[in-house]
Amino acid sequence: MRLSLNQATVKRASVPEVVEVCVRNGIPAVGLWRDPVAEYGLERTASLVASAGLEVSSLCRGGFFTGLDQRLDDNRRAIDETAALGAQCLVLVPGGVPDRDLVAARARVASALEVLAPYAASAGVRLALEPMHPMFCADRGVVSTLGQALELASPYPDSVVGVVVDALHVWWDPALAVDVKRAGSRIHSYQVCDWVTPLPADVLLGRGLPGDGHIDLVGLTSLVTDAGYTGYVEVEVFNEEVWARPFDAVAADLVARHATGWEPVVDGGHDRLPVTP
Amino acid sequence: MRLSLNQATVKRASVPEVVEVCVRNGIPAVGLWRDPVAEYGLERTASLVASAGLEVSSLCRGGFFTGLDQRLDDNRRAIDETAALGAQCLVLVPGGVPDRDLVAARARVASALEVLAPYAASAGVRLALEPMHPMFCADRGVVSTLGQALELASPYPDSVVGVVVDALHVWWDPALAVDVKRAGSRIHSYQVCDWVTPLPADVLLGRGLPGDGHIDLVGLTSLVTDAGYTGYVEVEVFNEEVWARPFDAVAADLVARHATGWEPVVDGGHDRLPVTP
Repeated sequence: MRLSLNQATVKRASVPEVVEVCVRNGIPAVGLWRDPVAEYGLERTASLVASAGLEVSSLCRGGFFTGLDQRLDDNRRAIDETAALGAQCLVLVPGGVPDRDLVAARARVASALEVLAPYAASAGVRLALEPMHPMFCADRGVVSTLGQALELASPYPDSVVGVVVDALHVWWDPALAVDVKRAGSRIHSYQVCDWVTPLPADVLLGRGLPGDGHIDLVGLTSLVTDAGYTGYVEVEVFNEEVWARPFDAVAADLVARHATGWEPVVDGGHDRLPVTP
Repeated sequence: MRLSLNQATVKRASVPEVVEVCVRNGIPAVGLWRDPVAEYGLERTASLVASAGLEVSSLCRGGFFTGLDQRLDDNRRAIDETAALGAQCLVLVPGGVPDRDLVAARARVASALEVLAPYAASAGVRLALEPMHPMFCADRGVVSTLGQALELASPYPDSVVGVVVDALHVWWDPALAVDVKRAGSRIHSYQVCDWVTPLPADVLLGRGLPGDGHIDLVGLTSLVTDAGYTGYVEVEVFNEEVWARPFDAVAADLVARHATGWEPVVDGGHDRLPVTP
C-alpha cells in the first residue's frame, strides 16, 4: 500500500511546499485541504500537482450538514473543487449536535446525501463519509461508527458514496473487523495516525505519528487490504510537536516508519506506551 | 425514578459529610467510593449509612482486569466490601490496552469475570460492568459499548453480572435504544451527568451537571425505565467547578434539576450549548 501525505500533517506548509516535500521524499500522493488550495489557487494547484506527478488521494473537506444550514451550496463547491483537482474522493465530516437531538442531527446527514450524491455522481466525484470518534459526536461528527456510515451510504452506488477508514476514529470499535470487510469497495480513503495517552488539552490535536500509540495499524491495514482496498495509506496527524518539525524531517520519518510497518524509528516510541494502572 | 448522589460529585466530602448532605437535601441514596469508605472504616460506614436511612446505590469500583495482573484479589475484596455495605452493585471499570492488543485486553475482561462471577454470586453481590466512552479505551476501559458489555455478561445470571448505563459513556451509541431495551434486568446502575463542549484539558473531568450539555437525559431515562429499571438515578459528575462549590449547594441544585427533568436552574445552562460551526 503506497504512502500519501495529508497536508494537515505538515500544517504550516503551503501547497507548493507540500508538493516539493512529497517529491523530494518519494511520496507519490498528497491529501489536500480546501483552504490552502484556495489560497494558492485551484487551477494552479491542479497544474502543479499534475506536473509533479503526484496523485491527490483526498480533498478535505465537505460536510457539516447538521446545523440549520446544511451547507449544501458550499458542499457543491467542494465537489467541483474535488473534480478540478482530480482528487480520489471528497472527505465529508458530518457535523455535530447543535442541540440535544442526536437522532435529528443524524437524519440531516442522510438528507444532505440525498441532494449531494446525484451532484457528485454527475461530477464524477466520490464522496467519502467519515465516521468520527464518539468524542467528537457533540461538536463535529454525529456518524460514530463505520457501520453507521455504511448504512448512510447504502442507498447509493459504491462509486458515489463511500467511507473514510481513519484509524483514530475507528480503532476502538468492537465491530471493526466485520465492518471493514463489509465496507469493501466503499472504502474511498484509508487514513492513519495513532492514539496517544494521555490526550493533550485540545483533543483535536491528540494524534500521534503512526507507531507512537495504541492502535494496531498493521492489523488494521491487513483488514483494509483484505477488504479489497488498493488506494493509498494517507497519514493525517494533527499534532503541535509534529507541526514544529521541519517538513522534510516529518516526511522522512513517515517514509521510514511506513517501510517497517509503522515501527517508530524515533527513540522511545514504543516505550511511551503506558501500562494500565 | 429516585435520586442518588454519587460521592465523586462532591469529591471533597468525607463519608459522614456526604451522608449528612443526602439527609439534609432529601436524597434517599448514595453512591460510595472505596477509598473514602476505607478511610472512614467499612463497618462504620455501613452503620452510619444504615442509621441515616440511606440506600447505597453503588460502590465504585472494581475492575482494571487488563494488565498483566488482573487484580483478582483486590476485586474479591471489593466484592466483600460491597456485601458489607449492602450496596446494590459493584461498578467494574474494565481497564485499558497496555500494549496494542485490544482483542487480548478484551479477552482478559471475560476471563476475570469467569473467576469473579461465582465469588460475587456467593456473596450475594451484583457486578455492574461499565461500558466506557471510546475515548477511554486506551487507558481505562476496553468495553466500549453497551452491546459489548451485554455480551460479556451473557454467560451469567442477570442477578450476578449486569451493566452500568452511564449517560456520558453511552449517549452517542447508534445502537443505544436497542441495547438499553435488550439490557432489561441487567441494568444494575443508571448514572447521569452531561457532555459539555469544549472538553476541558483533562477529559476525565469533562462532565457537566445533568442539564448543562448535549445529552438527551429525558429520552435516556425513558429508555431505561421502559427497559424495566426501577433503581436510582445516580448523579456522578467529575468537574473541578462543581467540586469547588459548597456540598449543599450542589445537592440542592441536583434536587431542583431532577424535579424538572434536568432543566438547569442555573442561568446559562442551555445557552451554553454551542451551535455546530
